[in-house]
Amino acid sequence: MNQTQNPIYAMENFFYPESIAIIGASSNPNKPGGLPIGYLLNKGYEGKIYPVNPARESINGLKCYPSVLDIPDKVDLAIVSVVAADVYHTLEECVAKGIRAAVIFSAGFAEVGPEGLALQQRLTELAGKTGLRLAGPNCVGLLNANNGVMATFAPVADLPPVEPKVLGFVTQSGTFGTLIYNDCLYKGVGFSYFVSVGNEADLEFADFLEYMIHDPGTKLVGGYMEGAKDTVKLRRVAEEALRKEKPVLIMKAGSTAAGSRAAASHTGSLAGSDSIYNAFFKQTGMIRINLHTEVIHFAPLFQMGKPPKGRNVAIVSGSGGRGVTLSDCCETLGLNVVPLRQETRDRLESILPAFASTQNPVDLTAAVMTRPELLLESLKIVSDDPDVDIILTGMNFQGFDSSHPLIREFIDFYYHIQNNTDKFMLVSYFVQPGSEMDSGGRELLQAGMHLVFDWHENIKAVSQLATYYETLQKRKQDKYRVQAPGVKKPDLSGLLKPGETLSESAAKAVLEKYGIPVTREAMATSASEAVSQAKTIGYPVVLKVDSPDILHKTEAGSVKLNLKNDDEVRAAYHEVISNARKYKPDARINGVSVQEMLPEGTEVIVGVTRDPAFGPVIMFGLGGIFVEVLKDVSFRVAPLSPGDASDMIEEIKGFAVLKGVRGKPPVDIEAIADVILKISALVTDYRDSIEELDINPLIVYPRGIKAADALLVVRK
Amino acid sequence: MNQTQNPIYAMENFFYPESIAIIGASSNPNKPGGLPIGYLLNKGYEGKIYPVNPARESINGLKCYPSVLDIPDKVDLAIVSVVAADVYHTLEECVAKGIRAAVIFSAGFAEVGPEGLALQQRLTELAGKTGLRLAGPNCVGLLNANNGVMATFAPVADLPPVEPKVLGFVTQSGTFGTLIYNDCLYKGVGFSYFVSVGNEADLEFADFLEYMIHDPGTKLVGGYMEGAKDTVKLRRVAEEALRKEKPVLIMKAGSTAAGSRAAASHTGSLAGSDSIYNAFFKQTGMIRINLHTEVIHFAPLFQMGKPPKGRNVAIVSGSGGRGVTLSDCCETLGLNVVPLRQETRDRLESILPAFASTQNPVDLTAAVMTRPELLLESLKIVSDDPDVDIILTGMNFQGFDSSHPLIREFIDFYYHIQNNTDKFMLVSYFVQPGSEMDSGGRELLQAGMHLVFDWHENIKAVSQLATYYETLQKRKQDKYRVQAPGVKKPDLSGLLKPGETLSESAAKAVLEKYGIPVTREAMATSASEAVSQAKTIGYPVVLKVDSPDILHKTEAGSVKLNLKNDDEVRAAYHEVISNARKYKPDARINGVSVQEMLPEGTEVIVGVTRDPAFGPVIMFGLGGIFVEVLKDVSFRVAPLSPGDASDMIEEIKGFAVLKGVRGKPPVDIEAIADVILKISALVTDYRDSIEELDINPLIVYPRGIKAADALLVVRK
Repeated sequence: MNQTQNPIYAMENFFYPESIAIIGASSNPNKPGGLPIGYLLNKGYEGKIYPVNPARESINGLKCYPSVLDIPDKVDLAIVSVVAADVYHTLEECVAKGIRAAVIFSAGFAEVGPEGLALQQRLTELAGKTGLRLAGPNCVGLLNANNGVMATFAPVADLPPVEPKVLGFVTQSGTFGTLIYNDCLYKGVGFSYFVSVGNEADLEFADFLEYMIHDPGTKLVGGYMEGAKDTVKLRRVAEEALRKEKPVLIMKAGSTAAGSRAAASHTGSLAGSDSIYNAFFKQTGMIRINLHTEVIHFAPLFQMGKPPKGRNVAIVSGSGGRGVTLSDCCETLGLNVVPLRQETRDRLESILPAFASTQNPVDLTAAVMTRPELLLESLKIVSDDPDVDIILTGMNFQGFDSSHPLIREFIDFYYHIQNNTDKFMLVSYFVQPGSEMDSGGRELLQAGMHLVFDWHENIKAVSQLATYYETLQKRKQDKYRVQAPGVKKPDLSGLLKPGETLSESAAKAVLEKYGIPVTREAMATSASEAVSQAKTIGYPVVLKVDSPDILHKTEAGSVKLNLKNDDEVRAAYHEVISNARKYKPDARINGVSVQEMLPEGTEVIVGVTRDPAFGPVIMFGLGGIFVEVLKDVSFRVAPLSPGDASDMIEEIKGFAVLKGVRGKPPVDIEAIADVILKISALVTDYRDSIEELDINPLIVYPRGIKAADALLVVRK
Repeated sequence: MNQTQNPIYAMENFFYPESIAIIGASSNPNKPGGLPIGYLLNKGYEGKIYPVNPARESINGLKCYPSVLDIPDKVDLAIVSVVAADVYHTLEECVAKGIRAAVIFSAGFAEVGPEGLALQQRLTELAGKTGLRLAGPNCVGLLNANNGVMATFAPVADLPPVEPKVLGFVTQSGTFGTLIYNDCLYKGVGFSYFVSVGNEADLEFADFLEYMIHDPGTKLVGGYMEGAKDTVKLRRVAEEALRKEKPVLIMKAGSTAAGSRAAASHTGSLAGSDSIYNAFFKQTGMIRINLHTEVIHFAPLFQMGKPPKGRNVAIVSGSGGRGVTLSDCCETLGLNVVPLRQETRDRLESILPAFASTQNPVDLTAAVMTRPELLLESLKIVSDDPDVDIILTGMNFQGFDSSHPLIREFIDFYYHIQNNTDKFMLVSYFVQPGSEMDSGGRELLQAGMHLVFDWHENIKAVSQLATYYETLQKRKQDKYRVQAPGVKKPDLSGLLKPGETLSESAAKAVLEKYGIPVTREAMATSASEAVSQAKTIGYPVVLKVDSPDILHKTEAGSVKLNLKNDDEVRAAYHEVISNARKYKPDARINGVSVQEMLPEGTEVIVGVTRDPAFGPVIMFGLGGIFVEVLKDVSFRVAPLSPGDASDMIEEIKGFAVLKGVRGKPPVDIEAIADVILKISALVTDYRDSIEELDINPLIVYPRGIKAADALLVVRK
């Protein structure tokens, strides 16, 4: 891969340019062509700035050039803020000038309809042809907080920089992304990079994500996304992020039908089904968030640099009511408020008053107001309990001077927990509404303690952090490695005819090529042939019409079950044929399929649908009511790892049925996973051929599994 | 009811006392006995204040008395802050002094164990005997913000009073309640009353709620609750609140197992099952909240005084991304982002640029920055759409001076919508993080506009408001009236023997008394009797052993189904008896029940459990997997209205099954509701006799229903 093609190299021109040209520069400091000049001058950019505007001599004291071609020196980055119609020509000049990166603010492209789309496609072609990489068009630009590169006209708030600069952020909405940027910065999250990707004519969301993940200073990345352009690339980048242990928090909009419609209209993105996005997030270990404020709470906890070793929480509080609500909050958000060990409770009882509670949550009661040392003593005891992973506690040292010895002791204890134990501790601090933090509190902050002011949000973040570290551990296991495509790809030529719906027997033939067990069966074209095949297969048998034109065989009256002897088979043969003819006079009938009658088992379904954004997606569910009424199904995007297959089986609500209910033994869950992985191999090998596939029912037994029926639609 | 007994009258002494004695008064302004004196002096209380402390001459310039009996004038309210051991005697003196109301701060009662509980029970008895009404003990007290009655030592923040004073609040946790009080006040919610109920030795949560609901100035009430003491009273008060159209928002803690355990330990309250609390909230129309901040957002919307007429939302925004996320937020929280009418879209298209979106959400794009008038013009068009109930929009008039004509026009439009249309409109205003609101924004606030700064919280509040008004409408229907107990209470004497588990036939006899259809059946004590009864009932039949000692008849091998002739019945009779003897040699066997074999139908379950807090609770669910694996059941607290019965049927996830799936016709839902209501009548008539009841299965058909099996356990 040469440097022109690899976005990682091209990005250096976006984020570390030594010189920037602003084409369409404006002397109005509030216009898109004027704002970046002000920002570059005022936010510490040390490179050269070249305004380009044939109608001006100078802007903000900077010499102005009629065209980029007139700039005497090398230009690394062009900011393009001209009308849509002029963008192509402007970019051609950039290419001529040897510029390698351009940020295009201009609107009037894909977002305005077919004409704009055509204009945009020319930009994409130009980029592909010349190696000039583009951000935008229709974006608010990008910035690098490390060096004052402000290639943006976003109304960024005039806030002091926040250290450390750890968060990279990519947004598919310029305006909304800017709101997020300002709010995060205001609430103390330090950005490294911020990028608005606009219409993604060339570089896209995942490209910028990839750059940030490789940047040593960027410790975690966030994003606002309405729909991924290239989900295969995004998946690759997400896996790279896991390897580099950089959490990716994405606010994926369009989680509801209305939101998804709106997203499609907003960016013209292929929004894809939201439940498939959910599956994709699980599969790739990215953290899906609902509100950008989740980043604000997650970032500082992650920066503490110490994972919670589990989900077991102990709460130590001076208010019973607070303890109760924190317990609810923890359990609701996926943490466990565990019983403390008897030894812990005994030790607590020896120091606390009789009316305090030594169960978890530990309630010190108002006694802590008169004897504040009880808090620290209790925390020390609780921190010795090996069953506890996370300690949540609150300080209520109101009116304590910063010189109070307890403040110092508390800080020492905090750092002891942090540095010498495997416990994760969070401390809330109460500030009376409307008043300033007292000197005791300020002392804690100055000592670098992370104080919590909103438990609900922070408990959610702790749970997300626990999930993230669990994912990291999980993904180190072999079973989460996706198998490379099989060296021996079965030959399906002749079976997969474009646009055809395969008959049941043909569909099963495809499954057999991939080693999926199917019912023993044979085709008969006469009643006597059916009888002789039934004898070979063994009674009882099933007869079904075999026709690519009859999908609903039962509805057509063309399925006869549990036929026990020759006479029944003979009669059934004629009935199946005549019902099929009545149902659809012009149907092509290959014959009648004689199949073994499977013993009773548990019916499950494995299917494949084609999602516009993700391509082949594998679906799993229990048969009957579970799918039809409860929609209790799980998805994963192909290709799947063995771990993905197990996860999607365990994830359905009806999983308990598979483990055995009402005295039934558990079914062969590995056999289900095996079928899922074989289907994953099939749709990966023949990615462009499978439009739809359904094994329904797939009958699973305590040992073994068999496909009783199958449907396969080949793509046109 | 005399005035001493009716808490509403007694409350006047708590909230409108002309004189207050503080018994255990302290000269230390930070102690429980000192704080209320400071508050009373500084927060506008105009009545008389009498500190009582034998060791002091005066406190804060007020004359101090050795005992209440020494106070020369009438005392309306006593604040008691003495050690637990002295409380009883102190209250006796209060009675002697003719005091009618006491707030007891003192701790050391039920919360510390059996000894404290005994002490507390004496207070309860004293209250009952003398008519002295008590708040507490172990509470932080109460306050009336209307007249500066601060009978509390809670650390209330020194914040200016907020008008209008509309919120009454009751809390079962003093410390946590105070946090809520301070935070609500700081965020602009004006309180009328605030009460910490402590251990509820006499007056309880529901009593104070009742008082507040009857107070004209209190427009809505909130509460923090861990467990209701008297759920019957609370239900009556909740119904009164609905009649008076005062919303009740309760943060019910203990929603998880851990929280519930903690609540039980904290207040010793019978927490009750959380899913039953959920049902109770639905049934009584109270709004269950998870965080107190929900009150802060609900209160101002409710005070706008205009209900949203439905749940259909239109969003008009200048940011596509914001529109998408608002759409998601609305749909997730129960509002519908509906398609706009074609006429509306045509009109929008005529004024908006081509790249704007006229579907819902309406995206004005950045065009609104240069042509701000587009916002108002679009809103006018959208407000004409009859399909829209709620309009959400945002102002982005940054840098607009308050004198800008658009500000004025916007205010006029807002009041036009508010006063002359049936639309509900919410406006968000963007304030750059870290900066002050600009003069345009201040102008809007001064004009009395309710501006929204957090969409997520406010959309939730709009949805709650819509639910509240829907509940109000629903509850005006006759079908939500609980029927008075039947005049003809069936006589079950002889059937309900305390402590007994009834045999199936006895249980069915009870159901029949209430008119619930049960399988035709007769008892046989010999094989030939069984045959003759089978002939009378008609083949096929079922045989089941009838024994109060064998609950699991199938497991015992003592159920034989689908017997088609005399021989099969004869053989089955002997088998049923011998299996029962093998299963449980000492079982009392009444005989064998010969029953009609019911045709296939849909199996449902109606059951009754006894909840420690709520008494008899009725449960409904679909049979089989739905109950056993998915726990898909609904609850209502007896007695039920017909509306409650329909609601609980419709509420289960499997309701679609009852409406008919896979080509099956719908079942007789009215017949299910009828059975539920009859069971409600049974457990209301015999409230103290029914420990447990299960009709499982209850088989329902497209027309009709029949109880196939029943179990009834009588209370001891």
